[in-house]
Amino acid sequence: MFKGILKGYFMKLILTAASLFLLSISTITHASSPTKQLLTDAQSDPNKLQLMVGFPPPVNKRITLPDSNFFSFPKLRWSVCHMRELLPTTSIARNPYSYTPLKYALLPDIDELTFKPSNSNNLMTWQQSLAANYTDGMLILHKGKVVYERYRGCLDEHSKHAAMSMTKSLTGLVAEILIAQGKLNDKALVKNIIPELTNSAFGDATVRQVMDMTTALKYSEHYADPNADIWQYSYAANPLPKPKEYTGPVGYFEYLQTVQKQGQHGAAFGYKTVNSDVLGWIVSKVTNKKFDELASELVWSKIGTEHSADITVDGLGTPFAGGGLSATLRDLARLGLAVANQGEINGVQVIPVKAIASIQTGGDKSAFSKGGFSSMPNGSYRSMWWHFHNANGAFAARGVHGQTIYIDPTAEMILVRLASHPVAANGVIDPTSLPAYQAVADFLMAQSKEN
Amino acid sequence: MFKGILKGYFMKLILTAASLFLLSISTITHASSPTKQLLTDAQSDPNKLQLMVGFPPPVNKRITLPDSNFFSFPKLRWSVCHMRELLPTTSIARNPYSYTPLKYALLPDIDELTFKPSNSNNLMTWQQSLAANYTDGMLILHKGKVVYERYRGCLDEHSKHAAMSMTKSLTGLVAEILIAQGKLNDKALVKNIIPELTNSAFGDATVRQVMDMTTALKYSEHYADPNADIWQYSYAANPLPKPKEYTGPVGYFEYLQTVQKQGQHGAAFGYKTVNSDVLGWIVSKVTNKKFDELASELVWSKIGTEHSADITVDGLGTPFAGGGLSATLRDLARLGLAVANQGEINGVQVIPVKAIASIQTGGDKSAFSKGGFSSMPNGSYRSMWWHFHNANGAFAARGVHGQTIYIDPTAEMILVRLASHPVAANGVIDPTSLPAYQAVADFLMAQSKEN
Repeated sequence: MFKGILKGYFMKLILTAASLFLLSISTITHASSPTKQLLTDAQSDPNKLQLMVGFPPPVNKRITLPDSNFFSFPKLRWSVCHMRELLPTTSIARNPYSYTPLKYALLPDIDELTFKPSNSNNLMTWQQSLAANYTDGMLILHKGKVVYERYRGCLDEHSKHAAMSMTKSLTGLVAEILIAQGKLNDKALVKNIIPELTNSAFGDATVRQVMDMTTALKYSEHYADPNADIWQYSYAANPLPKPKEYTGPVGYFEYLQTVQKQGQHGAAFGYKTVNSDVLGWIVSKVTNKKFDELASELVWSKIGTEHSADITVDGLGTPFAGGGLSATLRDLARLGLAVANQGEINGVQVIPVKAIASIQTGGDKSAFSKGGFSSMPNGSYRSMWWHFHNANGAFAARGVHGQTIYIDPTAEMILVRLASHPVAANGVIDPTSLPAYQAVADFLMAQSKEN
Repeated sequence: MFKGILKGYFMKLILTAASLFLLSISTITHASSPTKQLLTDAQSDPNKLQLMVGFPPPVNKRITLPDSNFFSFPKLRWSVCHMRELLPTTSIARNPYSYTPLKYALLPDIDELTFKPSNSNNLMTWQQSLAANYTDGMLILHKGKVVYERYRGCLDEHSKHAAMSMTKSLTGLVAEILIAQGKLNDKALVKNIIPELTNSAFGDATVRQVMDMTTALKYSEHYADPNADIWQYSYAANPLPKPKEYTGPVGYFEYLQTVQKQGQHGAAFGYKTVNSDVLGWIVSKVTNKKFDELASELVWSKIGTEHSADITVDGLGTPFAGGGLSATLRDLARLGLAVANQGEINGVQVIPVKAIASIQTGGDKSAFSKGGFSSMPNGSYRSMWWHFHNANGAFAARGVHGQTIYIDPTAEMILVRLASHPVAANGVIDPTSLPAYQAVADFLMAQSKEN
């Protein structure tokens, strides 16, 4: 019946709207093979393409509903900087009266560093890696100071860029703070916090299993299958109007109640965005506050941000805790800095040290190995942060199309990249990224020894 | 043909979406008669009604597309504080590194002042007028200091409220600044700035006629008529997806090209929002900058604002220069202060004095008298600011449902009201407003004499 009512013009409209929104939620984890025909970084520069330039922009330069998918390449090279112009959003507020300036000690030599991509035998310079990865913004902190900062494509120092699934890491941090404050018990069953989820897959999962995405869900994100669950999730979450005849779930919260269980919780990591939205619901239920309020109160207003962040909302005003964040490069660096500094900013403990310590523990490697992330063979996932378990103990927030906050505690390095790579899956982007990060870390550690 | 394709489910969806958007643009100038059945201010308090409260909100407390019109009363009492959650928007950026704190010298006696509403013989207290006018925020400045500040309904000191047609006054100010800077000539014909408008009504109008709304337009805003032009304007401007089969104009700029002339420009004031959007287009054309950038660069980042403002956009990202602004009460007070102080903030000339002087000249009273605003018998309109031509030389930004920035130069008073009155037309709200403002002005002038 759900499908029966979607027909004719109406179906086209809804499908278009849903696919737009779907791509904005970006849970794509499997690589499509990059083809030779793709425009390069320079060719797809939105300034060079003059996307959306003019009053009004010429028809062939428009990124507009519904004829064009705003998250298709190369349009996404513009859209990643303009999410609030495309979708309803709310604000994650900064402290209106003060911010913490970043300290600078720039190291121009970084551009000339070389590394060997893991999928090639040819050396690449750091500077070349920026273009190879369709980088929009890159900021590197070493020992708390900015050593490198670049803006490219649609981004400048004050514009906000889609963080995609890095949003999840903010959600995980909010949950860890509430746990540290004694307001949330990660051993509790979800149904005891959200009675509405009792009969869903999440009902008998623990909060921890949701946080670490080891829930066992009958839930498919296979985009090629028109009956995949992700499509119905998109219908429900899309903030655009629904037909009067639509009887399916409305918004994230109602949809989540329909997800059914398949298997045993705790056995395997399964990267599914619905977990993040359940966690967004959990933190709201235990505090009686909206996610945007919590993220502001517990994190964004505490870490010295220059700008409020934006977050997309569903048709009921619920923030998209699984992928809706947009923020400036510098403010995301401040988030990384607060986490890397164990919650301390300028000598003040603004985030409980226990919250960071719990994230940094890392997740269940055995469960993770069943999750299908071959580019992270030794990895794990905890509290919605990715752990590499490499020699330097690096961990990261990651989002499709190349977003990352990469924290290397050994090198005392935090690296933030915002990007609009044509391929969503980070597995495709990692070969020219992870070895490059390691090269910078090695360089910075060598610098430290010299000084 | 335009109408022919709108049928069935699809028509319902589009009409609903258009009506939502229509009401958000708020050009309603004729009063519907207030009925006895209306909920009072206290009864319609969105906190009391628990609108949109809960995770998720119960079905009967939701303000959501498309079944409910978010700008119907009492829903608008919530929606005026949440526009960016309902529509795509962009930001009018503040200065990210500093703001100007407001100075305070509170006068609690204001609450007890009495006045006689112009439609009643019974005295009313100032405090009673807040409820009578469904006030969400009230801030009064005297000699540059805050003497009164109240938050009610959905508003608090950091939340943004729809400014409705006060947006036009910001647009007019931006235009006056460009004129003062020599970048715009108000005697120029519109077609010489915007060739696309050559064959429209605006082509042979001067920039000044557009700024003062004395253009002669074949354009109806009669809401009861389903063929009124305002409906097609709404279709075009609505940022929601359009059907593939839709062949009408897309966005403000394309729609404006279709407006035809009726009569002679310069003869009569006609309050029509399309003029404001033409002016928004003009200022973009002469500077090659988007309206949101200009409003930030020339005004919002200069006047000491605490928060960036929001502005709704059409499906092409064009800001709604005729009504899309949302801002905090204090920041709108800073805008009023900058205008009242002839563009000077803390001894720095941040807005050219000529720009303010031009606004303060007032408009053509004879033309205004033909515009149908009986509640302002001696009034005029210049550069999208309303002039009362009363003994104190008061002028104002005004928006439907009770928005105002009221500047009384003689009393050295600036009064900002944000409201969500069930009736759109200010003509209905003025009887309990204008005499109240005068009572406060008289009180403040008496205070000045005493001191």
